[in-house]
Amino acid sequence: MSSSLGTLFRISTFGESHCAGVGVVVDGVPPRMKLEPADIQIQLDRRRPGQNKLATDRDEADQVEILSGVENGLTLGSPIGLLVRNKDQRPQDYGSMSQIPRPSHADLTYRQKYGIHASSGGGRSSARETIGRVAAGAIAEKFLAEEYGIEIIAWVSSVGEIDAQDVDHANLTRDLVDANDVRCPDPVAAQLMSEQILTARAEQDSIGGVLTCVCRNLPAGLGEPAFDRLEARLAHAMLSIPATKGFEVGYGFAGAKMRGSAHNDPYCFKNGRLATLTNRSGGVQGGISNAEDVYFRVAFKPPATIGLAQQTVDYQGEAATLEAKGRHDPCVVPRAVPIVEAMAALVIADLALIQKMRQPL
Amino acid sequence: MSSSLGTLFRISTFGESHCAGVGVVVDGVPPRMKLEPADIQIQLDRRRPGQNKLATDRDEADQVEILSGVENGLTLGSPIGLLVRNKDQRPQDYGSMSQIPRPSHADLTYRQKYGIHASSGGGRSSARETIGRVAAGAIAEKFLAEEYGIEIIAWVSSVGEIDAQDVDHANLTRDLVDANDVRCPDPVAAQLMSEQILTARAEQDSIGGVLTCVCRNLPAGLGEPAFDRLEARLAHAMLSIPATKGFEVGYGFAGAKMRGSAHNDPYCFKNGRLATLTNRSGGVQGGISNAEDVYFRVAFKPPATIGLAQQTVDYQGEAATLEAKGRHDPCVVPRAVPIVEAMAALVIADLALIQKMRQPL
Amino acid sequence: MSSSLGTLFRISTFGESHCAGVGVVVDGVPPRMKLEPADIQIQLDRRRPGQNKLATDRDEADQVEILSGVENGLTLGSPIGLLVRNKDQRPQDYGSMSQIPRPSHADLTYRQKYGIHASSGGGRSSARETIGRVAAGAIAEKFLAEEYGIEIIAWVSSVGEIDAQDVDHANLTRDLVDANDVRCPDPVAAQLMSEQILTARAEQDSIGGVLTCVCRNLPAGLGEPAFDRLEARLAHAMLSIPATKGFEVGYGFAGAKMRGSAHNDPYCFKNGRLATLTNRSGGVQGGISNAEDVYFRVAFKPPATIGLAQQTVDYQGEAATLEAKGRHDPCVVPRAVPIVEAMAALVIADLALIQKMRQPL
Amino acid sequence: MSSSLGTLFRISTFGESHCAGVGVVVDGVPPRMKLEPADIQIQLDRRRPGQNKLATDRDEADQVEILSGVENGLTLGSPIGLLVRNKDQRPQDYGSMSQIPRPSHADLTYRQKYGIHASSGGGRSSARETIGRVAAGAIAEKFLAEEYGIEIIAWVSSVGEIDAQDVDHANLTRDLVDANDVRCPDPVAAQLMSEQILTARAEQDSIGGVLTCVCRNLPAGLGEPAFDRLEARLAHAMLSIPATKGFEVGYGFAGAKMRGSAHNDPYCFKNGRLATLTNRSGGVQGGISNAEDVYFRVAFKPPATIGLAQQTVDYQGEAATLEAKGRHDPCVVPRAVPIVEAMAALVIADLALIQKMRQPL
Repeated sequence: MSSSLGTLFRISTFGESHCAGVGVVVDGVPPRMKLEPADIQIQLDRRRPGQNKLATDRDEADQVEILSGVENGLTLGSPIGLLVRNKDQRPQDYGSMSQIPRPSHADLTYRQKYGIHASSGGGRSSARETIGRVAAGAIAEKFLAEEYGIEIIAWVSSVGEIDAQDVDHANLTRDLVDANDVRCPDPVAAQLMSEQILTARAEQDSIGGVLTCVCRNLPAGLGEPAFDRLEARLAHAMLSIPATKGFEVGYGFAGAKMRGSAHNDPYCFKNGRLATLTNRSGGVQGGISNAEDVYFRVAFKPPATIGLAQQTVDYQGEAATLEAKGRHDPCVVPRAVPIVEAMAALVIADLALIQKMRQPL
Repeated sequence: MSSSLGTLFRISTFGESHCAGVGVVVDGVPPRMKLEPADIQIQLDRRRPGQNKLATDRDEADQVEILSGVENGLTLGSPIGLLVRNKDQRPQDYGSMSQIPRPSHADLTYRQKYGIHASSGGGRSSARETIGRVAAGAIAEKFLAEEYGIEIIAWVSSVGEIDAQDVDHANLTRDLVDANDVRCPDPVAAQLMSEQILTARAEQDSIGGVLTCVCRNLPAGLGEPAFDRLEARLAHAMLSIPATKGFEVGYGFAGAKMRGSAHNDPYCFKNGRLATLTNRSGGVQGGISNAEDVYFRVAFKPPATIGLAQQTVDYQGEAATLEAKGRHDPCVVPRAVPIVEAMAALVIADLALIQKMRQPL
Repeated sequence: MSSSLGTLFRISTFGESHCAGVGVVVDGVPPRMKLEPADIQIQLDRRRPGQNKLATDRDEADQVEILSGVENGLTLGSPIGLLVRNKDQRPQDYGSMSQIPRPSHADLTYRQKYGIHASSGGGRSSARETIGRVAAGAIAEKFLAEEYGIEIIAWVSSVGEIDAQDVDHANLTRDLVDANDVRCPDPVAAQLMSEQILTARAEQDSIGGVLTCVCRNLPAGLGEPAFDRLEARLAHAMLSIPATKGFEVGYGFAGAKMRGSAHNDPYCFKNGRLATLTNRSGGVQGGISNAEDVYFRVAFKPPATIGLAQQTVDYQGEAATLEAKGRHDPCVVPRAVPIVEAMAALVIADLALIQKMRQPL
Repeated sequence: MSSSLGTLFRISTFGESHCAGVGVVVDGVPPRMKLEPADIQIQLDRRRPGQNKLATDRDEADQVEILSGVENGLTLGSPIGLLVRNKDQRPQDYGSMSQIPRPSHADLTYRQKYGIHASSGGGRSSARETIGRVAAGAIAEKFLAEEYGIEIIAWVSSVGEIDAQDVDHANLTRDLVDANDVRCPDPVAAQLMSEQILTARAEQDSIGGVLTCVCRNLPAGLGEPAFDRLEARLAHAMLSIPATKGFEVGYGFAGAKMRGSAHNDPYCFKNGRLATLTNRSGGVQGGISNAEDVYFRVAFKPPATIGLAQQTVDYQGEAATLEAKGRHDPCVVPRAVPIVEAMAALVIADLALIQKMRQPL
């Protein structure tokens, strides 16, 4: 539903690059949960640009303010309004681009859809729109951790042609992910990825990548067939992130090449429950979690705004050369880590609350 | 939301394998549109099992009845109820499986979620649930074709390791797709795919595959940022189809390996509008259609129910060997073609109606 | 949302007078609940026309068929499809009315809205549309009775100028309500009401009335501020019933004439909980149930279709006299009793499931 | 949906009395509409307490800030975030009430529902929650006025036993309504109402009242049967306002006493269209607007918080006397005028956008 997401745990985001602020209303947060700004700020800081040499050098403080829904450090059960002021606005950077729609950017489609567009070009397709998601997701994560022990960890698994190897889902931590700037827990790959990004930047180009995310300790039973299957809701949430082009859960596209006898996950009895010996399915069967790790991958295209000259046409259809000015990320995947985590948390929190409707009184 | 999908063009499906029937309520269909059962039956027949030697040999007539919303061959604007009776039920086929949850099937998760399960095992995860989708999708398609000239065509682009080559999006027709049983318009690949499927069947195994779908003639402007982006809604719809594990739009995961300078689609002026020279984006920018072809791929895992012996455990956790009886598709992708088309049509119809809210009076 | 109602316990109705059938899809019904057609039929029989001399003499059997969602007498947790075939169709009765829109009927507005209208005139404004509601409401009621001990009883409290006296909310039963044809538990008033209705019928006129409904044993805590307050959801549900024009909860409009000191319900301690000494509020404070009886009143206008000659104009704007043919209820309130009960049950069931999201695991 | 309302024109409100601020996210506002803070402030000022001697003397400036969705004085089509800071907080006024739940107030039910409550007692049942509604409603009104010429005017039609006479719906203006403090356009009744309110205040008591609202120039065709009928949506919206207990459209409860022959609105031909000679229906037939004035009444109970001593019990069930401190409105209806107008505008704007889905391209 446009700028709202979720049924019981529901968010409504607002804001674009050059307005007063961006934020979110989070409805359905369980009452009596401890919550303070620091719980949210930690993920906003991970999302923030200018963290290191791999990202744009815009310094956006992105301090969150809790407007409502919390009193004396406890949630009230009422909607939580969150606001982050926009500070570092340089609309002049977009001047030249106002005549030429950026190839593969939302400049043109926003204008086609709304008959107007924000001075920043792509309006809500801006990366700043994701601040509200990350802030809301931090609350969802806290709820899931406290009530279910759920842990959600995303990392960069590919940049360009470089793929991470040997990531152990079971023992991965955010500290391991954040151990390097590229947020890849495979240090060898991380080094190569970093070089790829710096090279792209030096060449005024950009580069794509893939994130993987694992969600541990989900209870069995989450996901609402037919249309709110866990993987459907995750796919929806992930493809709503700017620059995403693909989603796969479990073995995904690779599994489509396999035989059933090789792809199926046989059952065993472990830790007092039916478990699976393998987990090619990615923790979901028939749209419902089976208590194994849920893991999925999200493809991000290379950012559309590049400094390299592009032969294109302007809004009047006249041939034009575009060399984008301003500070632009050569690769979004390191900063996308907390965004993917947030979206996963929002989906799972919603499905967890919905499943409670089947609890006995 | 569970068994409902859509905001303005909205469906609510019902039914599982061994009940009286399956069907759907389709709300929001524009009034004064010609509609007769044959418009719907044609896609149901394409979905039906037992069509050829590649599929299960269950003969399910699957005749649709229009219960409401149509009078004298015209839609009234009121909800259209559609019903397909279940006929060929053989619950005894599932007897042995009632003690052993099928690996990678929904048998166990349905039980975990609902504390009960249908005699057929997976309940709504059954392929029969998709009948309502296909029936509703046929109505959505008719609306899109008449009002916008939109054409939606899906085909099998991979089976196992076999990939189709050289499919021309612009001139593809459903007749070309249906020219062979495997529904791959590349006849060379189709032959190889067919062999793969027959071999898997002979070995009592199953095999996965990939569908590609192209949607032509979409107007610019469809898709509702931030959360109802066109690609997000498509991903959601596709991952809600049983057995799907992945989705990618445009260059998808392959694009994530690229540089921006190589991936971007520069603009040109063509046919009186700004068009793109290439279409690596898959017809969508910032979540909004740009009037180029929308195309995407959907990964289907190999069917979980196989005749081959599987070492697993029963519901009590005791070691067991499962050799599934009954008639099961060795590969679902040929029959999934009309399902993918239907889901695409439902998403696009909904977004098209929503975009009308921005029309002047 | 148009023909759907509810968030977790959700219905989608379909059907009008002269199509194959009317029905409903009920999603969100808790699994493992006993359910058989008779549980539903009992309320459909109370809604059915032709029950007695006060109603239209159309004999509509209105047998419900459970299409899905139930197996071996137990709900599966999947959507329950319900169908009632239309039998007694006499479209010719509407012949003369096809040229003249009935005053205060939906004939004209349906045509204005949809640019087409069903042969029966008002399309979905037909009383037959309520069959799906009553059928779904019977399931909701069963759930509420079994899980919470909730009882919902509506009765006719006014017909024209005649008002019922002395109805004891605490001891009222449906048997007491059904003890007379007019469904008013005050036998003196019932006799007068019955005379009013028969007189109106004899004069080919119609007459309005009011229903009161009491809901007993609601737990405290149901209702979702700000917009899904219990009374807001009830008002919405009641005003969605054909022919309704008003709703009030507790003292309603009469309370608006009072002082706070006279209207407030002071607390006492009773049965181990804080209770109210009086219940002028109607069991709801701030949009949330307080465990006292919820009661409300619903105003029904006199049916618009009357045999008496009406001076009006036809669709071309030419002066015309309309004398409606066919069998029409002179007063809808006796038959509306199960409809009001059903709508109340649907609202409460939905809010009860939503409130479960605040239960600890 | 809890703190969200609407399908296409959709709001999500947040905030309670003693947090940082209250506000709303308004999604679905058509793009390219002129909008500045003054368009919103004008209605907030009418809602503000402390405007005159009839209301509480809290001076709340309630200045609105537009956070997003507007650039250069034009709407972008993206969500509009609106924020009003809380300034005049005196939580100490609520000290004594923290031990004793106020009779007929939400203190207890909020605690029952959420297991916690805000220091102000009723949390979101606070009148401050309505600021977001009024702010959003002002935007909806502007859209409706510019696109359809719709005018929405509410006024106080009753205070206690005093009823306004002779209000001419056709020529009423907001200036006429605001000509006196009580906002009743009948000056004689207004004087009596004012005395009633001042007397109640002097006696530390409160008094109820009724608002009437007329909506002029609605096009025919708004309202979505079966469940989003215009009157159902209006009833829902009105009963979601704090302190409301009743709703009636057209002749409402009075019409329920009438015969059909007296209540029906015959058609005539006027101004080039089919119109009705009378308008007892209140501009709606079968849930759909018929282009006549829509008018309805809303009952407000007397405010629950009064200074007069009330014999009740505290949270432990012990007998207690409550004499509420602080500044409380003796009568809410004058200030409720812009709230009712806002809620009407929000409902109509949503239904108007939805009806556009039936426009031809």
